[in-house]
Amino acid sequence: MSLEETSYTPFERYFMEIAYDGTNYSGWQIQPHCLAVQEVIQKKLTGLFDRLPIHIIGCSRTDTGVHAQGFVATFLTPERPSIPPERVRKALNHMLPPDIRIRTIKKVPLEFHARYDTAGKAYTYVLNLGPESPFTGRYSWKPIHVMDVEKIRAAAQRLTGKHDYSSFVVERANIDDAVRTIFRIDVQEFGQFCCLTFVGDGFLYKMIRCLMGTIEAAGSGKLSPDDVTAILEAKDRSCAPETAPPRGLFLMKVFYDPAERDAYTLPCLPFLLS
Amino acid sequence: MSLEETSYTPFERYFMEIAYDGTNYSGWQIQPHCLAVQEVIQKKLTGLFDRLPIHIIGCSRTDTGVHAQGFVATFLTPERPSIPPERVRKALNHMLPPDIRIRTIKKVPLEFHARYDTAGKAYTYVLNLGPESPFTGRYSWKPIHVMDVEKIRAAAQRLTGKHDYSSFVVERANIDDAVRTIFRIDVQEFGQFCCLTFVGDGFLYKMIRCLMGTIEAAGSGKLSPDDVTAILEAKDRSCAPETAPPRGLFLMKVFYDPAERDAYTLPCLPFLLS
Repeated sequence: MSLEETSYTPFERYFMEIAYDGTNYSGWQIQPHCLAVQEVIQKKLTGLFDRLPIHIIGCSRTDTGVHAQGFVATFLTPERPSIPPERVRKALNHMLPPDIRIRTIKKVPLEFHARYDTAGKAYTYVLNLGPESPFTGRYSWKPIHVMDVEKIRAAAQRLTGKHDYSSFVVERANIDDAVRTIFRIDVQEFGQFCCLTFVGDGFLYKMIRCLMGTIEAAGSGKLSPDDVTAILEAKDRSCAPETAPPRGLFLMKVFYDPAERDAYTLPCLPFLLS
Repeated sequence: MSLEETSYTPFERYFMEIAYDGTNYSGWQIQPHCLAVQEVIQKKLTGLFDRLPIHIIGCSRTDTGVHAQGFVATFLTPERPSIPPERVRKALNHMLPPDIRIRTIKKVPLEFHARYDTAGKAYTYVLNLGPESPFTGRYSWKPIHVMDVEKIRAAAQRLTGKHDYSSFVVERANIDDAVRTIFRIDVQEFGQFCCLTFVGDGFLYKMIRCLMGTIEAAGSGKLSPDDVTAILEAKDRSCAPETAPPRGLFLMKVFYDPAERDAYTLPCLPFLLS
């Protein structure tokens, strides 16, 4: 039987939802002189498919130290017939280090694109408002100043909507258009942790960490809600406070359906979600 | 004014409650060729007290990779007058790596002994009964087999009481007497995690991890409650299943008052406790 006679599609596109602890990685995207999550997964996939080179397409970049619960990436299977998705998932998880886990794998249409087809993303930033702990320090930011959750809510409200977010962008030179829509910023408390969930159509480089720097200053009373609006309207990075550290940030979910995006709620602390 | 004329006690004993993520340490006790938590804290204390050598006395050893929420250690202050406890705590936390935190420091009588004066200890072992996660893998053990919490409870019940725990001891040759009392083993569920809290008068080297190996085998149905009792009564390590990994184990609390010990309940997941 020749390959032409098989009933299999020659290539298939596999869709993965990936969780990772970003502490020890230089983010998602492959870069020289450091270890990226993409590189780790690609190498294992290449090993799995008889050393045929596999290229993964990710839904976005994440910065050094940022975590993910639902990063989305796809790849084309080189084999015919392909290894079934669930077998690929189990084999990958067996080979990957414990700080990278493949949550799901499924087939999607060949023309599906992880980045261009998105209807939005949800990121959660975790603030620790209680005592420091050796166990949650990797996954949260403890601001130096005392925070008022109502002030955090008021600042978050001022930063929601469709705006030019130039005041909250690093490497402005590389960005043509800083207009984005943040549909909402949910503020939830879980014990001593305050979680801010940003649901938007897309986010610029370090944008959420820049926004969190301003929200932190507002939460501690250093900035009023009107100051926050003034910073947003200035469209100038130098007007905004410092960027928050990456360790509190989680890419929670990538949406390909606007209804799913609008219904999303953070169910629990990001690092407890299974 | 000479030193004799001061009203200060020449030396004072300071009592510390310490939390640490044991992942990157060879346990509490100083050993050659590896890094112990005791060594890290002692070096920082010595730096704080004008390089006068400080020796810390710990409440027990913990194994490589085991965590602590309430490890107790004491030391004698070399200075007169001493730096106040709260200042020592803040200075230490400033100098220590983020995976070691001093929760409290207070003065205790000079004759207080962290190890000999205990009324018991509470350890919690965390089982992950749900999907694997890159965030909680450092702090829990996910058994390969499906677990039944009622079978875990039944096994724990059989292992409670005053017994010769020789079947659950590693390095038996170094131990004169393997009789210990486990007052209770509380089994609590927090979402997908099952926490077993062992409250006892004292525990032998790797004893809880050995007990957890047997409880895991019972939880998956490989051992019946009567099998568990038979293993206990055999007083022979070779009769019991393998030792559970250290990453799920937390020293939660050291008691110096029997009433406090008897009232102790685990309030939440050990790695979420502040």
